[in-house]
Amino acid sequence: MTYCVGLLLESGLVLASDTRTNAGVDHVSTFPKMTVFSVPGERLLVTLTSGNLAISQAVINRLHKQIQEGALPNLHSVASLADAAKVVGDALRAVHEDDAEYLRKHSAEFIQSIILGGQIRGERPRLFNVYAAGNFIEAVPETPYFQIGETKYGKPILDRVIGNRSSLEEAAKCALLSFDSTIRSNLSVGMPIDIFLYRADSFSDAGQIRITDSDAYFNRLRKGWAEGLKKVFAALPDPDWF
Amino acid sequence: MTYCVGLLLESGLVLASDTRTNAGVDHVSTFPKMTVFSVPGERLLVTLTSGNLAISQAVINRLHKQIQEGALPNLHSVASLADAAKVVGDALRAVHEDDAEYLRKHSAEFIQSIILGGQIRGERPRLFNVYAAGNFIEAVPETPYFQIGETKYGKPILDRVIGNRSSLEEAAKCALLSFDSTIRSNLSVGMPIDIFLYRADSFSDAGQIRITDSDAYFNRLRKGWAEGLKKVFAALPDPDWF
Repeated sequence: MTYCVGLLLESGLVLASDTRTNAGVDHVSTFPKMTVFSVPGERLLVTLTSGNLAISQAVINRLHKQIQEGALPNLHSVASLADAAKVVGDALRAVHEDDAEYLRKHSAEFIQSIILGGQIRGERPRLFNVYAAGNFIEAVPETPYFQIGETKYGKPILDRVIGNRSSLEEAAKCALLSFDSTIRSNLSVGMPIDIFLYRADSFSDAGQIRITDSDAYFNRLRKGWAEGLKKVFAALPDPDWF
Repeated sequence: MTYCVGLLLESGLVLASDTRTNAGVDHVSTFPKMTVFSVPGERLLVTLTSGNLAISQAVINRLHKQIQEGALPNLHSVASLADAAKVVGDALRAVHEDDAEYLRKHSAEFIQSIILGGQIRGERPRLFNVYAAGNFIEAVPETPYFQIGETKYGKPILDRVIGNRSSLEEAAKCALLSFDSTIRSNLSVGMPIDIFLYRADSFSDAGQIRITDSDAYFNRLRKGWAEGLKKVFAALPDPDWF
């Protein structure tokens, strides 16, 4: 399984993904699920992929190839992020056309979701969730985040803490705690975590980092959170009916 | 959907279930999912059911009928909780025999899970998870809780806070917070909550209560938890790489 989350804020975007891929308990390995398509100073696009790894890689390869070969439209040519979401959705449809029938013959489902976030000069930062069918939805201030993959364990903390006016730093903290909750409760989501803090109008990929098991900040964060929760829990009143 | 949780502690059991039943967004209603089978001073058994409501009710009716008609074995006759789990599993298998074929004709799956907790004099309190197939597993000190239904949102808080040495009061607090997280993130789980605190060797059903939206203790708990989490979150350090 996989866990990816994208948050759309007034001040920019936070995008994060785990890196665990598995097919059964023996085939556990590390593959990045975050891909950056950038033209510094002009556009910054990030995809997070969840689902069958062969499908994810086929889609990403197709998107890269379109850029290299100058096939239009591509992620470096489109003038808006909605058009970029259409390019990603069309790539997914093309991979479906190539592979879905063969997957069916092996009783394998065509499972794929893609979060696309970024900014193209002339627009504000935007965030999309592209479905396996190639259609997509866009995040709005009232619902400023998308999750894909193993989404449920890490949802309560997002629902409690994040709004679209949260700062980038708060959103990054919250995204990492959402991963912490997921990783503690589900073996199929694993370290390291790729996280991207994108500041609006920077058109830069400087905010990308890989957080490993030994990352000092992440360990301080998860320890502080665990201890803080236990303290809050202990201070709450006991049931009064028993 | 449904959310039920059972916790096995050295000091007893905590069992809790929501009461929302829905079939689509129009058919939302309240049905209890907790049923108590007790012989005061001698045995106390509680079932929590998740899945198709018609199946749940068919199983519970069958269990009641066995007791009323003196059919052996039944939940009032068995000498151990493992035997009680077998009685519940056999009732499930009988309902499957009656209904599964007809459900299939309507493309409906036979979905059912049952948590069974309690104590029969001569044994310590025990907790079982009975599967749709009628077989079952028992909780152990290392894994002292079972969840059924919409389990994921409320799992992180259980994983962080509860061990089998937790007090009944702590476990009840934690179970209610686990429901709070689930209800905030998922519309299909709803108030009121039925909760049962069973103190080991009491063989009494005095610890059962229904917690409604307006319950003063529950509201104090969820408010204190929400505020406490926000405080802990705000006090955590911001990312240092950005």
